[in-house]
Amino acid sequence: MESDHGDVPSAHDRSDDAVARACLTAVASAGDPVMGALLDEHGAAAVWEALASGRPPSAPPGIRPAAYAQRAARWVERAARVDPDSLLTESADLGCRLLVPGDPGWPTQLDDLRLHRPYALWVRGAHDLRHACLRSVAVVGARSATPYGRHVAADLAWGLAQRSWTVVSGGAYGIDSAAHRGGLAAGAPSVAVLACGLDLAYPRGNENLFADIAARGALVSEHPRGAVPSRHGFLIRNRIIAALTPGAVVVEAGLRSGALNTARHAHELNRTVMAVPGPVTSALSAGCHRLIRDFGATCVTGADDVVEQVGRIGTDLAPGPGSALDPDTLDPESRRVLAEVPQRGGTGTAAVAAACELGLDSALSRLGLLAAAGFIERGPSGWRARSARLTPQPTAAR
Amino acid sequence: MESDHGDVPSAHDRSDDAVARACLTAVASAGDPVMGALLDEHGAAAVWEALASGRPPSAPPGIRPAAYAQRAARWVERAARVDPDSLLTESADLGCRLLVPGDPGWPTQLDDLRLHRPYALWVRGAHDLRHACLRSVAVVGARSATPYGRHVAADLAWGLAQRSWTVVSGGAYGIDSAAHRGGLAAGAPSVAVLACGLDLAYPRGNENLFADIAARGALVSEHPRGAVPSRHGFLIRNRIIAALTPGAVVVEAGLRSGALNTARHAHELNRTVMAVPGPVTSALSAGCHRLIRDFGATCVTGADDVVEQVGRIGTDLAPGPGSALDPDTLDPESRRVLAEVPQRGGTGTAAVAAACELGLDSALSRLGLLAAAGFIERGPSGWRARSARLTPQPTAAR
Repeated sequence: MESDHGDVPSAHDRSDDAVARACLTAVASAGDPVMGALLDEHGAAAVWEALASGRPPSAPPGIRPAAYAQRAARWVERAARVDPDSLLTESADLGCRLLVPGDPGWPTQLDDLRLHRPYALWVRGAHDLRHACLRSVAVVGARSATPYGRHVAADLAWGLAQRSWTVVSGGAYGIDSAAHRGGLAAGAPSVAVLACGLDLAYPRGNENLFADIAARGALVSEHPRGAVPSRHGFLIRNRIIAALTPGAVVVEAGLRSGALNTARHAHELNRTVMAVPGPVTSALSAGCHRLIRDFGATCVTGADDVVEQVGRIGTDLAPGPGSALDPDTLDPESRRVLAEVPQRGGTGTAAVAAACELGLDSALSRLGLLAAAGFIERGPSGWRARSARLTPQPTAAR
Repeated sequence: MESDHGDVPSAHDRSDDAVARACLTAVASAGDPVMGALLDEHGAAAVWEALASGRPPSAPPGIRPAAYAQRAARWVERAARVDPDSLLTESADLGCRLLVPGDPGWPTQLDDLRLHRPYALWVRGAHDLRHACLRSVAVVGARSATPYGRHVAADLAWGLAQRSWTVVSGGAYGIDSAAHRGGLAAGAPSVAVLACGLDLAYPRGNENLFADIAARGALVSEHPRGAVPSRHGFLIRNRIIAALTPGAVVVEAGLRSGALNTARHAHELNRTVMAVPGPVTSALSAGCHRLIRDFGATCVTGADDVVEQVGRIGTDLAPGPGSALDPDTLDPESRRVLAEVPQRGGTGTAAVAAACELGLDSALSRLGLLAAAGFIERGPSGWRARSARLTPQPTAAR
């Protein structure tokens, strides 16, 4: 199995499991738990081979045969139209790489989705998705946001970026876009989970924003190239935003906003659900207030509040403040990168890449890992070592 | 002991206890728990007589003798300057009546303050204080409120008035004033608890508002005529606002606002604490958000939310929707008033007063009692019977 960092030139370079999962993204509805059950039972390669040969596997336990037959027929019909080689080659040509469960770069927190876990993810962007999401927050909200909501979303994302937290959101206008822009403005990567193929810019007006995200973070989709967005696709997409992150903040949402659906997913996944209050005279804050009043969402007013909430969980993923950070546990390449990061001041990604003779992508990926693990952080002048951690103080011992 | 409804022409018409309590409002600091303990131990008449004769009672248990001696000396010094007769006569001339524990009109919920209970209350206004507070909500907030806060406070008070709930607040500019104005605009009584003597209008700019409140509700103070406001007086006053009501709503408050002090009192008294959210960009909503996030205040966005919260407690004070309301349990005067209130449409207070040959004050007081007890309500065209309650429906039986 190849690393997810490189491109995927053809089906022959990936395992049967990975190729099968890539094809299944073009065959089954996203997050279909019946497909999830089949994958658990038979493995992806067997399921794909069965569908491609027109002999679908038998129904998983508990599924009504009539309903299953309909599904299976649709799958077989679609499988006949999928050419694994061209799917993978064309995706690679678009700059998309494939991530499947078991890959080193697979965000294992998605496994919490169990039968609803994506079959695979298509990723386009410079940043390593798993590392970006270790210290991440979902910042979501209404498409038709008010100037207040957009301001708060951008400000919140900027503050999170200053504290080395990454924004994960959708690709819509309004809160999603404002959050990405705020994080990018602070020099942080940003992760956008789209409900369509990564070759489509939807909405079109966000084409430049998506290019920025791809250049500095990651665009993610469980849909193959060419897939157009649907209402169901948006809703089912929200579970990925919720699952990738330890907590979700709803910045602005009407009472029927899709952002409340993301909050529900986050709640079901035992993630922290937070909401930003707003004027009670604004219909676009009504959803936030309802989350706070009736669904136990934490009222958050800025990045400090959010980090206080998700930090507890973040420290479960990254080593906590008290844990021993031993550079000897790192692979040689990461050690070389760490050696280039100064204790004071700061350095840029390009300087580290040049010093370590690494590509910009690889350097950024290593730096992201080191930051997520607590070795380094993003200061005002660039990357710097977290010296307090590397050099334990006697006073900090108790 | 005379009813609190009439004026108090001189000390000779009131019990020794009432006169003593009136004098003590001019002698001891408001809400002094040491005085509270003495009153519990000896009764007001004995405490007053001891102080007036220059022989203060011995210290209550648990009080350091040195600290007590200082207090007692101050009390004796002040007592020597109090003339009970002129205190009561001058107060009556100002239209102030005296309420003491045990009076029929004493709001017994103040007894929850225990040793901090006011020694007595001075009341000026048309409305019966106890009845007005049976279905009441404290609406408090910053003096330096924003237009948003003033709008929300007025709108909330108006909505509460429509649902027959009375606003209790202070007399400050900003949220307090906006809340009173909103309630009065909807034709409801309003209760203002002042931190100075009722002969002083503080702040001066609210003189007309206080006149409106006195004409249609009640001005309340634990301070005698002539007492000037102090910072301590404002804070200690807040406990009365909290104790009079089953719940307090903070509409706007900075992180150091006195309204948070009212919320703390409400919390300590097991009252419902509520806060209205606002823009996170507004420093004047920061106190509200902190109450919601860190102190368990309920996030409320309008009168419906508030009534949902305090209604539960309100039904403990007033008969609940399911209780039998038997007009035969009423005194003859209340029965006569009730008979004048129509089932449909509505009637004004003046019409009821004329029909029953009562003064406007007495009619308003009776109507307030009947409303608090659930017999009548304030509709768009005036007082009307709550017919659904008086005529139980078979479907409502289960």
